[in-house]
Amino acid sequence: MMNDLNKFFYPKSIAVIGASSKPGTLGYELLGNLIKFGYNGKLFPVNPKADAIHSIKSYKSLTEIKDDVDLAVIMLGKHLVLTAIDDCHKKKVKAVIVITAGFREVGEEGVTLEQELMKKIRKYKMNLVGPNCMGIINTKKGVLMNGTFIKGTPVAGGIGFVSQSGALGASVLKIIEKYDIGFSQFLSIGNKADISENETIEYWKENPDVNVITAYLESFSDPKKFLEICKDVTKKKPVIAIKAAKTSAGMKAASSHTGALASADTVAETLFEQSGVIRVNSVEDMFNLAKAFDRAKLPSGKRVAVLTNAGGPAILTVDEAANCGLEIAELSGETQKKLREIVVPEASVQNPVDLLPPATAEVYKKAAEIILSDDNVDAGILILGPPLMFDTVEITKYICEAANHSGKCAIVVVMSQDEIIADVAKQMPMHPPLFNSPEKAAWAISEMYRYKLRSESPDGKVKKFSVNTKGVRSIIGKYKQDGCYLDFNDVYDILNHYRMPIIETRISKNVQQSVYDANKIGFPVVAKVFGRELVHKSDVGGVALNIQDEEELINVESRIIAGLKDKGLDTKLEGFILQPFAKIEDGVETILGAVKDSKAGHLLMFGLGGIFVEVFKDVKFKIAPLTDADAKSVIRSIKSYEILKGVRGKKSVDVEFIEENILKLSQLVTDFPEFTEIDLNPFVFSPNSKKSRILDARIKLR
Amino acid sequence: MMNDLNKFFYPKSIAVIGASSKPGTLGYELLGNLIKFGYNGKLFPVNPKADAIHSIKSYKSLTEIKDDVDLAVIMLGKHLVLTAIDDCHKKKVKAVIVITAGFREVGEEGVTLEQELMKKIRKYKMNLVGPNCMGIINTKKGVLMNGTFIKGTPVAGGIGFVSQSGALGASVLKIIEKYDIGFSQFLSIGNKADISENETIEYWKENPDVNVITAYLESFSDPKKFLEICKDVTKKKPVIAIKAAKTSAGMKAASSHTGALASADTVAETLFEQSGVIRVNSVEDMFNLAKAFDRAKLPSGKRVAVLTNAGGPAILTVDEAANCGLEIAELSGETQKKLREIVVPEASVQNPVDLLPPATAEVYKKAAEIILSDDNVDAGILILGPPLMFDTVEITKYICEAANHSGKCAIVVVMSQDEIIADVAKQMPMHPPLFNSPEKAAWAISEMYRYKLRSESPDGKVKKFSVNTKGVRSIIGKYKQDGCYLDFNDVYDILNHYRMPIIETRISKNVQQSVYDANKIGFPVVAKVFGRELVHKSDVGGVALNIQDEEELINVESRIIAGLKDKGLDTKLEGFILQPFAKIEDGVETILGAVKDSKAGHLLMFGLGGIFVEVFKDVKFKIAPLTDADAKSVIRSIKSYEILKGVRGKKSVDVEFIEENILKLSQLVTDFPEFTEIDLNPFVFSPNSKKSRILDARIKLR
Repeated sequence: MMNDLNKFFYPKSIAVIGASSKPGTLGYELLGNLIKFGYNGKLFPVNPKADAIHSIKSYKSLTEIKDDVDLAVIMLGKHLVLTAIDDCHKKKVKAVIVITAGFREVGEEGVTLEQELMKKIRKYKMNLVGPNCMGIINTKKGVLMNGTFIKGTPVAGGIGFVSQSGALGASVLKIIEKYDIGFSQFLSIGNKADISENETIEYWKENPDVNVITAYLESFSDPKKFLEICKDVTKKKPVIAIKAAKTSAGMKAASSHTGALASADTVAETLFEQSGVIRVNSVEDMFNLAKAFDRAKLPSGKRVAVLTNAGGPAILTVDEAANCGLEIAELSGETQKKLREIVVPEASVQNPVDLLPPATAEVYKKAAEIILSDDNVDAGILILGPPLMFDTVEITKYICEAANHSGKCAIVVVMSQDEIIADVAKQMPMHPPLFNSPEKAAWAISEMYRYKLRSESPDGKVKKFSVNTKGVRSIIGKYKQDGCYLDFNDVYDILNHYRMPIIETRISKNVQQSVYDANKIGFPVVAKVFGRELVHKSDVGGVALNIQDEEELINVESRIIAGLKDKGLDTKLEGFILQPFAKIEDGVETILGAVKDSKAGHLLMFGLGGIFVEVFKDVKFKIAPLTDADAKSVIRSIKSYEILKGVRGKKSVDVEFIEENILKLSQLVTDFPEFTEIDLNPFVFSPNSKKSRILDARIKLR
Repeated sequence: MMNDLNKFFYPKSIAVIGASSKPGTLGYELLGNLIKFGYNGKLFPVNPKADAIHSIKSYKSLTEIKDDVDLAVIMLGKHLVLTAIDDCHKKKVKAVIVITAGFREVGEEGVTLEQELMKKIRKYKMNLVGPNCMGIINTKKGVLMNGTFIKGTPVAGGIGFVSQSGALGASVLKIIEKYDIGFSQFLSIGNKADISENETIEYWKENPDVNVITAYLESFSDPKKFLEICKDVTKKKPVIAIKAAKTSAGMKAASSHTGALASADTVAETLFEQSGVIRVNSVEDMFNLAKAFDRAKLPSGKRVAVLTNAGGPAILTVDEAANCGLEIAELSGETQKKLREIVVPEASVQNPVDLLPPATAEVYKKAAEIILSDDNVDAGILILGPPLMFDTVEITKYICEAANHSGKCAIVVVMSQDEIIADVAKQMPMHPPLFNSPEKAAWAISEMYRYKLRSESPDGKVKKFSVNTKGVRSIIGKYKQDGCYLDFNDVYDILNHYRMPIIETRISKNVQQSVYDANKIGFPVVAKVFGRELVHKSDVGGVALNIQDEEELINVESRIIAGLKDKGLDTKLEGFILQPFAKIEDGVETILGAVKDSKAGHLLMFGLGGIFVEVFKDVKFKIAPLTDADAKSVIRSIKSYEILKGVRGKKSVDVEFIEENILKLSQLVTDFPEFTEIDLNPFVFSPNSKKSRILDARIKLR
């Protein structure tokens, strides 16, 4: 079923079911807001007891209404909601918002009620927003719908905001005027029984009234869908999101290294990063950035200039800009000369340009124009500290004009004078973004620059390698039990089927056979304990490297057996794994793995291995299937990339070969989703791909 | 000379030299502010042309005044300032504030003028605040001095604020009422020619009117003094500071590893951390935290409870609390039972406790009392989202009462209703801290908790080891030239004189001698190039490990020589360093070093060594001399501490021995400040201190 949200956002008529004539009730406030904001369509209050509400004729029931109804907003007691849905069906209403609370969010009884509600919604082929939500807004001229029950008047702009928390939405609506947060459309999705963030964001992609999308989420309705949609949408317009509940228990941490390194927040972090959604941690940051995207041009580069009348704030701004990865623009000689002609002698004409407190509106405007027309400047932060003797609103408007005329990315910062932001915004509808913190302006420009780079980067492709899936299928067939680790010899075969360079391996049952195998492999060798329940081999002292000859091998294995006995683990021992001792002096130990999240699917992980992995957690996750661009990005985004590329005169490892193996692992878990955890650890990469080896590996089934 | 700031902050009479009857001038505004705020002493305007200003009799010159003058505020043109200082001397004024700008901050000419000014100040034994500053404030009853020229009325409270930027101070004064930032005293120190942050902070230590100290700094007047003073002050009251200009070029990065790892900001970061000063990055954070310290009790533990009427914000708060290291308190069964009795059925009585929007003032107050009296709760964040139908000021006051009565750490958050903060503050002078962001409240409580822990931790002591300083002195005597690296044999001797475990070392002139030395040491050996200009040995391929016998040694050294020839570096080769190849399988490679900053003195650095040092920069700095507590803290604060303590079944290295060596290095640079850079890298620590070894070392002189 197509989720066409036009009926929600652009209805020609709205029935308010549960409208009330009692001030203070939701039914009174919501209808009042619709009227006050000047809704351009027809309103039909529905209330069995009232004749008129807010001076509008009221209907005893929905079916009494003769005109068509595009959207029904239901605010009845929860036990009356289902009947109202039936009425909507009779009246052929396809878009329904249920404000009423008391559903899934209150526990068992509510879950049942919500299921019944959704049964009807599906049966009647309707779309539902809510239940337990706060309503809808569209500020576009010709619509002017404020279908919420909150105090505060929406300000028009290009921001779309979808919120899972009604209360948070309410907080935001209270401050939009003061901080000049211009909304185009707002949707409170509540329990998101039907319409979720996914449908909303997808809908806004092609909606010309929405320039930038913001979202407050407490959960993902369908993470895989979210990834798919947002990857696409963010190419066209920015998406900024808050994901709360970061510390709640997420993916059940598993026994693999990969699983242990994935935190409760890894899925969200990965989803956002991989889809190009900009994640922020506070409402303030979200709307500051949204404002900047909505009202400023994208910066064409990262060189920023700062204009100020106060030294201290400018220094903090330059600090933050550098901290966020921006460059401090070097103003040309000509720019400095032009500035010198208009400023007081004590002023600084180098970036940050400090006009000092006496600067007038005219000087400010000219200085801003001169700076922004310098070819060395990609973006400007125009700060106005509290002027001593001038009208702040007037100066701000002059600065805004210069910003508008420049055709460049520019943010105007009114420090410590929040109260004038609304005035300036009202007097000058086409104003640049108005901030109250210069540091936030620097940060916003850096995010805009990163967005620009990202949206220009080419789309990746999912590569297909020629592999032996049949071989893997038949191995899986042998295992009837769930949640078990595959035997090492099966792991060995699977990796060979996918042409991944697992090290030559022989498994011996006892010390005698070990000696035979070691001679076949050729000394020096590595010996490791083998046993389904001996998963973390190093922890039980079960790994011995660089064994030179038969005698040493016998000693080592005997010592290992004795050690296991001491720990009471000797009965778990099933034999020994023998492998060549690969001298990999040029190699770098990495870890490559996969772990399955019940909702988001497989997360692949790549990063630095060895004893440092738990300490530095220098690993990166991506959701499968990965594109070649994803694989490239994952390798380049770990800090140890520097080490992979060779430090202190060492050669770079074969990075393309890492890429290939990441993609093969992605293919393996995509082909066989029943593998819930895979650790290739250590996976040693060398300058020569032929010498790169997986030294140990574990695979868990279902 | 004692810097007694009482004459500045508690003057019985003030002469305003350069007072003016022209509105808009600094001289008019400053005198006006003093009168408006109700200064309790006598004011003497001084102006050669006026009879009366602001209705107060004006004097032609300072010396005409008959009464004693405690404080002179000078606002004349810069060329009249020196004569005014002479007049102050004649009038026996000991405390002078020079507001006038145009001194050091404008370049050469100003520097000279400032030097002349300071000559007079010293000669007359006066104290000077400024020049180029904004003035002084003391809100205490009985003083009520607003000696600034800024608009905005100071709000009384317990915060002391010293600011190096006048403009930033002005911004702050504009917002103090709105955000309820209660100042006790404020000093704008401008160019700090005499009185700096150090004297001010030291003065406030014993001042009972100041509960918490805040500072905005762009530079340190005397970093060593700052460290000494703040270490002491922070034991008694919290100090919160912003240090701007983080990205400016600081310490000239040196050729040593230690030097390279010290950034421009390392000195500031280290100073703050070592002195217990809490560093923040924005004015907003500084005063939020100061407010919390001023108006709330310190939390006795880290278990925090959240009360709310809106789910979304509460989740963000809990996220941030966990993120900042707090714990989410588990409410007792009894607490939950008591809550259940007063809340609506849909409300959640587990932490975060969500009363839902219908909550009344009485319910809010009772709920807050119940939660804060739970023994499992150390601190409370009491959030009020915009209520639907109640008076916000009224509810807030009820919540504040509960917070006050609790005797526990509690912050009240008024979300999206900034405008009522000032009202509540006025109506209820003894209110708890009022925030507008719940996340900031969580962060503030975490900083308060950390402050509490720090102020309770015992003071460290500087240990003295018995060492051979004479030996070192005589080695230094051999070097006549500045800026050179010591020969390795001298480095070897110095470390032996300080009983630091440098590895056994022989230096050979040529391959033949190498063979002889290697046999003396015993194979396997390590061979490294030796040459004053071959500083980074690995980079030129000049290090060979694990050489098994004579033949291999000859091959290796021949190959190294050939390699240097290829690079045109063979003329720099002075011989080979031969050392035993120590098998340090249980050991951890670290780096221990020192680098000298021209103002702060020696910074010691300790951290993880090896190829990871540049990538992860897992190192920590401290300013010498270090106490035993500093040494302990430096080791424990690196991430790799986990590795030092042993991972995957490995034994812990001897951490006390690391401590000892850090303290010995601190003693060495304290004894011999002429050593500007020292690298002990790698310094391998083992479980057995006797096996711990410095494998390479470099020392730079002057």
